[in-house]
Amino acid sequence: MNHTATSGRTPWPYPGPRPGEVEPAAQQTIADIGEFELIDLITRGLPSNDQVELGPGDDAAIIHSRGGRTLCSVDVLVEGVHFRRDWSSARDIGRKSVAVNVADIEAMGARPIGIVMGFSAPGELSLTWVRYFVQGVREECDRAGVSLIGGDITKSRDITVSVTILGDTGPEGPVLRSGARPGDLVALKGRVGWAAAGLAALSKGFRTPKAVVEAQQVPQPPYGAGQEAARAGATAMIDVSDGLLGDLGHVAQRSQVSIDVHRAALGMPEPIRSVGQATGVDPYVFLLTGGEDHALAATFPPGVVPEGWTVIGTVGEVPTAGWPSVTVDGRPWEGKQGYDHFH
Amino acid sequence: MNHTATSGRTPWPYPGPRPGEVEPAAQQTIADIGEFELIDLITRGLPSNDQVELGPGDDAAIIHSRGGRTLCSVDVLVEGVHFRRDWSSARDIGRKSVAVNVADIEAMGARPIGIVMGFSAPGELSLTWVRYFVQGVREECDRAGVSLIGGDITKSRDITVSVTILGDTGPEGPVLRSGARPGDLVALKGRVGWAAAGLAALSKGFRTPKAVVEAQQVPQPPYGAGQEAARAGATAMIDVSDGLLGDLGHVAQRSQVSIDVHRAALGMPEPIRSVGQATGVDPYVFLLTGGEDHALAATFPPGVVPEGWTVIGTVGEVPTAGWPSVTVDGRPWEGKQGYDHFH
Repeated sequence: MNHTATSGRTPWPYPGPRPGEVEPAAQQTIADIGEFELIDLITRGLPSNDQVELGPGDDAAIIHSRGGRTLCSVDVLVEGVHFRRDWSSARDIGRKSVAVNVADIEAMGARPIGIVMGFSAPGELSLTWVRYFVQGVREECDRAGVSLIGGDITKSRDITVSVTILGDTGPEGPVLRSGARPGDLVALKGRVGWAAAGLAALSKGFRTPKAVVEAQQVPQPPYGAGQEAARAGATAMIDVSDGLLGDLGHVAQRSQVSIDVHRAALGMPEPIRSVGQATGVDPYVFLLTGGEDHALAATFPPGVVPEGWTVIGTVGEVPTAGWPSVTVDGRPWEGKQGYDHFH
Repeated sequence: MNHTATSGRTPWPYPGPRPGEVEPAAQQTIADIGEFELIDLITRGLPSNDQVELGPGDDAAIIHSRGGRTLCSVDVLVEGVHFRRDWSSARDIGRKSVAVNVADIEAMGARPIGIVMGFSAPGELSLTWVRYFVQGVREECDRAGVSLIGGDITKSRDITVSVTILGDTGPEGPVLRSGARPGDLVALKGRVGWAAAGLAALSKGFRTPKAVVEAQQVPQPPYGAGQEAARAGATAMIDVSDGLLGDLGHVAQRSQVSIDVHRAALGMPEPIRSVGQATGVDPYVFLLTGGEDHALAATFPPGVVPEGWTVIGTVGEVPTAGWPSVTVDGRPWEGKQGYDHFH
């Protein structure tokens, strides 16, 4: 089936259907092949990380953790909440579901090993969609060096992808949110504001700027940067998933410190400025409060910030009559600091 | 609020609303309190297994595994597919979501340590429902000796609970599906057919027999029996979640053996016989193909079957011109062997 053959539109450069492409009604669905063939389709010929002792096919998977310590985190992506099938291709959604989880393990300064995936979908979902979704999952697993080690498949009304990731740490141990100390520098690796600007553009019916729309479709966490930060001596670290200020707020709270962000240090990427103009939103709202890019924010003692990280702020004492907080250029930020699922 | 005060019905003996109870419209919802208060409600004062190094609150949780080997399994429960709010109380659904996962770790002959939970729900879900759900989760965690170590909360149309469980094994190592040998005995611990009979009763509008309805609402896997079987020398083991014949079929396939089940050894519990009569279904269909009770089925060399396990069959060679299969009293079973989510 040639997905680029419909009329004179721009050719669709990716494998898989164009987002929102109407699929032939006669196409095979997952109900046609059933749960066990579907499992086979997903798991057939999976490559395996060398710390995986047992992959899919038994009651549980088994991994080996260096030092006997296993890290674990879960993220759930729900259709209509975290993605829309008319905004993202199946492959993008597969990639994103892996990337957001790897970011959590990176943020502990740890090494990701394997994922288990809960996949829920309506029976009438096309097999083609699932094939490209699985392709995306595998591609991103390859990029991040993790294996798909198990899962569960169920029926549901909306596509829901729940990924749990396991990882371990080397001798440098995990980097928690609680270790930031007054005098530390705050540094960032990866992008902030791009995915939020992309969402704002898509919500207004735009498909451009392409760079921010693609950032919304598939985040690009800086793989390997978390372990790099741990080796360099990071004192605290967090995955920026809900917005820079909100997530630094978690670090401030856990570490009982104050954090000041220097706005000028963030720069202002052109596509974000342009979405701000087109939508009437202060572009710093994207930079400071936009989630879903999965950059890493970490605190370091001065002098050890690794190359490639941008120093964006400083850590200070909590004021005597105050509480742990995050300021921007010394002043409180007016407005929301991040994303709340129910607010 | 007194949930038993409505008219002259039987008093509702459990904490929490009666299944299907209409809740006051003015009641507080999870959207009223927001994601972060909801996380606090779920995680506040959680007890912790002594192998948990870091619980909820950072980017990932950390457990310690004896021997450096971590087992991992996921199960997803979807409203309208795995449970109905008018058939099961919030507390029952909380308990079930833990129990079905512990069963997978038991089936590896392993010890469960902790769970991470993806919880998706509509914003208008009542806080009371969530409170009782969390109570059920905590109760079952206590029964099984596991800790809630992390999670993710998102919006969705249908309540979806995705639980991933981590565990480890002692020196006896994991018991896989692949180790059954001709000459072994097949033994069962726990119940089969009860939950399926309960579902059949509920589907016809009955609320009795109480024993099978309750079995459908909350499975009772035989906690500890998996480790017991491993120590006794079980050669293969499986969690009976999809139906006895279907799940033994997985063992036969993986072990490249044939399995014969002796129907008389299963007995016929009175409530299952009675549901069979009321619904016109051969009650052996429930016993042999009903899932969701989460019994353990294991194979043992003769002479080592632990007390409390019931020998229900034998393991034989695959016939020369045949393939691995499961028979009942020497004959193929006519009909479905278990549950397929899309068939």
